[in-house]
Amino acid sequence: MPTTPPLDSRNPELAPERDGWRRRLHTVIFEADTPAGRAFDLILIALVALSVVVVCMETVGGLPEWSYRAMRITEWTLTVIFSVEYLLRLVAVRRPAVYAASFYGIVDFLAIAPTWISLFVPGARVLMVVRVLRLLRVFRVLKLTRFLSEARTISTALQASSRKISVFLLAVMAIVIIVGSFMYIIEGPERGFTSIPRSLYWAVVTLTTVGYGDISPKTALGQALASLVMILGYGVLAVPTGIVSAELAQQGRLHPVSTQVCDRCGASDHSDDATFCRKCGASL
Amino acid sequence: MPTTPPLDSRNPELAPERDGWRRRLHTVIFEADTPAGRAFDLILIALVALSVVVVCMETVGGLPEWSYRAMRITEWTLTVIFSVEYLLRLVAVRRPAVYAASFYGIVDFLAIAPTWISLFVPGARVLMVVRVLRLLRVFRVLKLTRFLSEARTISTALQASSRKISVFLLAVMAIVIIVGSFMYIIEGPERGFTSIPRSLYWAVVTLTTVGYGDISPKTALGQALASLVMILGYGVLAVPTGIVSAELAQQGRLHPVSTQVCDRCGASDHSDDATFCRKCGASL
Amino acid sequence: MPTTPPLDSRNPELAPERDGWRRRLHTVIFEADTPAGRAFDLILIALVALSVVVVCMETVGGLPEWSYRAMRITEWTLTVIFSVEYLLRLVAVRRPAVYAASFYGIVDFLAIAPTWISLFVPGARVLMVVRVLRLLRVFRVLKLTRFLSEARTISTALQASSRKISVFLLAVMAIVIIVGSFMYIIEGPERGFTSIPRSLYWAVVTLTTVGYGDISPKTALGQALASLVMILGYGVLAVPTGIVSAELAQQGRLHPVSTQVCDRCGASDHSDDATFCRKCGASL
Amino acid sequence: MPTTPPLDSRNPELAPERDGWRRRLHTVIFEADTPAGRAFDLILIALVALSVVVVCMETVGGLPEWSYRAMRITEWTLTVIFSVEYLLRLVAVRRPAVYAASFYGIVDFLAIAPTWISLFVPGARVLMVVRVLRLLRVFRVLKLTRFLSEARTISTALQASSRKISVFLLAVMAIVIIVGSFMYIIEGPERGFTSIPRSLYWAVVTLTTVGYGDISPKTALGQALASLVMILGYGVLAVPTGIVSAELAQQGRLHPVSTQVCDRCGASDHSDDATFCRKCGASL
Repeated sequence: MPTTPPLDSRNPELAPERDGWRRRLHTVIFEADTPAGRAFDLILIALVALSVVVVCMETVGGLPEWSYRAMRITEWTLTVIFSVEYLLRLVAVRRPAVYAASFYGIVDFLAIAPTWISLFVPGARVLMVVRVLRLLRVFRVLKLTRFLSEARTISTALQASSRKISVFLLAVMAIVIIVGSFMYIIEGPERGFTSIPRSLYWAVVTLTTVGYGDISPKTALGQALASLVMILGYGVLAVPTGIVSAELAQQGRLHPVSTQVCDRCGASDHSDDATFCRKCGASL
Repeated sequence: MPTTPPLDSRNPELAPERDGWRRRLHTVIFEADTPAGRAFDLILIALVALSVVVVCMETVGGLPEWSYRAMRITEWTLTVIFSVEYLLRLVAVRRPAVYAASFYGIVDFLAIAPTWISLFVPGARVLMVVRVLRLLRVFRVLKLTRFLSEARTISTALQASSRKISVFLLAVMAIVIIVGSFMYIIEGPERGFTSIPRSLYWAVVTLTTVGYGDISPKTALGQALASLVMILGYGVLAVPTGIVSAELAQQGRLHPVSTQVCDRCGASDHSDDATFCRKCGASL
Repeated sequence: MPTTPPLDSRNPELAPERDGWRRRLHTVIFEADTPAGRAFDLILIALVALSVVVVCMETVGGLPEWSYRAMRITEWTLTVIFSVEYLLRLVAVRRPAVYAASFYGIVDFLAIAPTWISLFVPGARVLMVVRVLRLLRVFRVLKLTRFLSEARTISTALQASSRKISVFLLAVMAIVIIVGSFMYIIEGPERGFTSIPRSLYWAVVTLTTVGYGDISPKTALGQALASLVMILGYGVLAVPTGIVSAELAQQGRLHPVSTQVCDRCGASDHSDDATFCRKCGASL
Repeated sequence: MPTTPPLDSRNPELAPERDGWRRRLHTVIFEADTPAGRAFDLILIALVALSVVVVCMETVGGLPEWSYRAMRITEWTLTVIFSVEYLLRLVAVRRPAVYAASFYGIVDFLAIAPTWISLFVPGARVLMVVRVLRLLRVFRVLKLTRFLSEARTISTALQASSRKISVFLLAVMAIVIIVGSFMYIIEGPERGFTSIPRSLYWAVVTLTTVGYGDISPKTALGQALASLVMILGYGVLAVPTGIVSAELAQQGRLHPVSTQVCDRCGASDHSDDATFCRKCGASL
């Protein structure tokens, strides 16, 4: 979940304790509590969305000539804007190297590099597609709005159930490898199961009930085993759903947890309506 | 959810405070609390259902000639009936323009227009298919019957979880765009991924586990990425189900168990309608 | 759910108050509380299973000749046994016509009729496949064993949520008809959507995430609409799951409800551990 | 669930009450509480994973020649290591026959046998694929780590709901057989439903929403029945998910909220570790 990386903008290391314009620049670009910062983020997300649309539509054939020209111009304009933004980010933080090496720093760089490189290397434009990774910035919007508590609920539920889901993924992996290998023996290369990795791909396609049908069992034995796997997949599907449901229901039932910390014993996670510390009985 | 639009028939603006026959007409046509209003709604739904069947069957080839003739006659009869109903609705409300511009007003108009236009423009009959939108009137029936509380429970649960579902849809959208774009690079136009929008279509087909198989990855790398997406889709599927389950469980839980605690023996978890403690018999 | 029909064997109307052997016959054939009745039911289910296997395997080509002969003999033997059983059932009940007209009576008759008719009409053997309906008798086994309470829990949960599921099915039906009709307009007969009923079939295949791929949208607009429907299907899938989960959780949470009825006020549905009536406070 | 078989290594029958080196060997190989035992298990799992990768990659064509040679060497090295391990296991237990006949004993033997046999019988190497079954040892890792409680929660929930899931599987089986048989009659061999077993395979593929599309209904009647089955499958999917969700929610609920009620203010729903009332601060 990319909800944590944006937090590094509040990292005390990066916090602005220097000349006024730089601090203001940092507030606008990296934070979202001020009106200016919020406006900056919303405009940025709109530009990223526009750039994603351009990247997508450029690959579509059969459009009128002028639209490709318009898209090319938009692309260059956005590249220039994003380049300026990247430079401003480098200037605004106290330690540019830390930002440049961070996840979002790398994504921001990859979003502008291909277009500039394509001036010299023609094929590089294809890589422009990595620009869609900037879409992850959209999760920053979750920090600004009233979606914050919703995002936190889902995120907490997923974190709380992550170990159970790991156990489940381990079981899925074992089922996929065992079933896939045996199907390779049963069906064999001449019926589409050309190698075990390809059989594993079939097993994933089947167990997740996607079922493309590009590879499917032809022999009676293979179809019988496949039927068992499908019904198993059914049951397996129930487990993560059950885990997440139970976790979310759990959170909904407990009173919303407040951010209060008892100033006598330091206990936290008090329920929202608590008046006294549940650990030491001190008034909160 | 089209459960709210019918409510506008109770809008005070449209409420009948005028001559008697008009008020009665309004009661019959727009309301569903009186026997006449209920009967009107049920007959209307039956006619709408009949008209949908006719619209569907007319597109089927190879039926005997007389059946097409019968369907043509039914269609014209229903068009006349629906036209009369539309005029009556215009007459019954105090402000016809408000009704005509409302969602159901437009649907009612679109349901009759194509047949009349087809008298002059032959191709217009194809548009008759918009008549199926009148099916949405079927949700009015939810207002009349004992399904009301059930519909309200589902509707409340969906509304309560709408923000969480928005966060989830945002995540799905980001996954679809990122995965789809990278699959376009990996598989390329020669293997069916002819453009990024088409790759996005593939990503949706895969992530939702529909899996038509009209486009499917052919390279080993593409199949590996697709396998990851499928297992991810599995986990993603768990989230909205968990959200709605937890919400419905929450609502179910609020009612039947009261928060009463017996002041004689301290027993809790009494059912909502309990008057005496189930443990010690004291009055609650 | 075929769990209720077997109950009609306990119908007081059919209860045996007559000569001894008939009563005993009734107990053995229709009831399952005695060792003999239980043994009869288990043997019958084994024979039904055998007959289903024979019906299935007879349609498979390429087996050795002797196996078809063996299956033919088994089939006739089972037909004779089932015919005797049918006659015994007619004899054992007080009102044979009531049994013969009941659901299981008709199924029992249809299971033996085709084989006898095939003596005179060669093609009738194909109908022998209705014999698989006798498999429904397997649900009788739920009455004998410790699965009773489990079956009742699921059955109660499904009944309790049946209205909510009806509302949900209504919504699914409306979505299928509206989406299917518009896809017929968008894609048209030349791309596989040859008629609206066929489009509805496509809509069901897509909304339920089955996705055969025998019909799939080809135009960009069709693919965009299909993508929306799939993501909608995703959300829709969450609703019935949520309903059933919440219902089952509800049942699990309440203390098991005892069958006690207060002898002062007649209130029922007391929780298992209740000592006093929750309505009038009388000792239970 | 293969979580219980490893337990037989703690079986008192196999417990080491003999000379020192044997006891130490047993502790290292069969148990996982000591650092040495844990290290042994982790190394073993890594080697098993490596051997699975080799088994998979050997079936892939088109790799450079040296990689096949490297895989052949790795395979023989692993076979020797696993053979030594197998012998050590036989030596370490008090009753080698019991281990050799146990599930993991057979798997361990099957993992090494094919390579040795391939020295004499060329075709036997294909059977080497059974080596992937050793992957099940990965579940032993659940015993060592902090995943233990998570695995136990899932396992307990599945065990508690196993009877309900049996009832559900019975219903699924009956639906599959009845629907499959009738589709064979409706569609017939000329449209891909060549035999009833193949129709059953189609029914499973459809009911589990996998939907390969290798067999799909072509007639209008068949498509209508298939649509019904799909919507039924939808509802059926809800049942096991609901069962597991409710069970997991049940388990989650038992712990974190205690049943304590404050004897000063009567507040309930205190968290499990609370020492003071969160409402009035009284000691609980």
